[in-house]
Amino acid sequence: MEPISILVTLDANYLHPLKVMLYSLFINTPNQPFDIYIIHANLTDSELSKIDILATAYQSTIHPIVVNPELFQEAPTFRHYTISMYYRLLAYKILPESIDKILYLDPDILVINTITPLWQIDVSDFLFAAAIHTQITNITNRINEIRLQTYETPGYYNSGVMLLNLKKQRAELDPTEVFTYIKEHIQELILPDQDVLNGLYGTAIYPIDDSIYNYDVRHFETYFLTSTGTKDLEWIIQNTVILHYCGKNKPWKKTTNTKFSSLYKHYEHKMQLLTNKKE
Amino acid sequence: MEPISILVTLDANYLHPLKVMLYSLFINTPNQPFDIYIIHANLTDSELSKIDILATAYQSTIHPIVVNPELFQEAPTFRHYTISMYYRLLAYKILPESIDKILYLDPDILVINTITPLWQIDVSDFLFAAAIHTQITNITNRINEIRLQTYETPGYYNSGVMLLNLKKQRAELDPTEVFTYIKEHIQELILPDQDVLNGLYGTAIYPIDDSIYNYDVRHFETYFLTSTGTKDLEWIIQNTVILHYCGKNKPWKKTTNTKFSSLYKHYEHKMQLLTNKKE
Repeated sequence: MEPISILVTLDANYLHPLKVMLYSLFINTPNQPFDIYIIHANLTDSELSKIDILATAYQSTIHPIVVNPELFQEAPTFRHYTISMYYRLLAYKILPESIDKILYLDPDILVINTITPLWQIDVSDFLFAAAIHTQITNITNRINEIRLQTYETPGYYNSGVMLLNLKKQRAELDPTEVFTYIKEHIQELILPDQDVLNGLYGTAIYPIDDSIYNYDVRHFETYFLTSTGTKDLEWIIQNTVILHYCGKNKPWKKTTNTKFSSLYKHYEHKMQLLTNKKE
Repeated sequence: MEPISILVTLDANYLHPLKVMLYSLFINTPNQPFDIYIIHANLTDSELSKIDILATAYQSTIHPIVVNPELFQEAPTFRHYTISMYYRLLAYKILPESIDKILYLDPDILVINTITPLWQIDVSDFLFAAAIHTQITNITNRINEIRLQTYETPGYYNSGVMLLNLKKQRAELDPTEVFTYIKEHIQELILPDQDVLNGLYGTAIYPIDDSIYNYDVRHFETYFLTSTGTKDLEWIIQNTVILHYCGKNKPWKKTTNTKFSSLYKHYEHKMQLLTNKKE
């Protein structure tokens, strides 16, 4: 079976959730090999080997890539954001040219059904595929529209789950436009990488259904009500592919205690049982 | 590896949750074969074959046993309770004499960690091992003590998870005492099989920890508070073996929506994916 290419970008703080995410990905798309591209700046060999153990157990391969700092010479940084915020936007400059398409996944997600249909979405005419958190951010969408002057996009895209058309990006994009955009909009930016995605590329994104591919676990009631009761827990468990644990109450924290926490922590625990046994 | 013997007793209404329970059992005690004894009165071959498909996928074997109605000639029934309430109490008369020990499991449970330590508990000096829902029913325990006159037992045992010492039961027990007890106490009985377990055998039960082996999912807050915050969600996911979905709000219903519902429904969904594929 052809491997599916996955992109993750992280520092060591997110190593633990990254492993939970990958474990859930492997378990719920059975018999599917993955090529996991890890763009990072500071992971140790020991940290990488832990991800490798997990991937190997599921016929998958990790490809760690240390970024070339030259690419980011002109990159502005600000507040608590680091250079790593650029990795997903500039992946087309960092990844091998042989890769035409890749699925970027945030570490704070849980994959609960097969990823294959998302991977197979045709993005040949778009730079990205991504989900708008439409139902839950109608007001925020309008504010973002004014803030980022993205009047021609259907809403504000979340950058946590993105299918990247690297081939088209290589042909059409230039890294300096990202840096320039940030410098010019530094007063308005709130979530820099996501704001850049929307502000620069909003009209070239193929919209995918957030309730399937980027379900914000904080907003169960809103999804439920705006679907007139269709999208209840049973629907989510059967149909949603990606649960996104947005916000500050992260499910790997000991105090987590929400509707989707028990599911997350069970995956976390099973990942730990597996990797502790194998280490 | 020696198989672990599991007893389930049911009618067709509980076929669906039974499959979820068994799937969770198989998944979380990996590479462990099970002998599943199914005492029933009215399951069809088609229904049994669905359980068989699931068991076979996990190196396990089902042993359906249709009860001999003669055993229950003298058995009183009342209210909405059927003859099947006696199966777990009289299993020592129904199961093959070659089986010395068996683990009875209710269908409304989810096994989330390995069952092996429970199976290995030494019950040689007891008729049963079972859990008291101590922390959560101190008042109810006292009422039950008066109602059933079980002053010498440490509390009221829940009959949903029980290790049965069949060898000792065969040597010491007589089925008619169950029927006699029910006839004599018919005014006081609320949950007949559980009341009989406590009233007749309460002093011969080895108490096991309910927070590990029979966690009542309705009472998260009580477990949390009575353990001074130790038994939080993370503790449960890492330590609890059996989640018991007691009460009326059953997790296989579409409207379920509690702290442990997402975990249950994910197992339910994965069981269905597996058995639908194989049917």
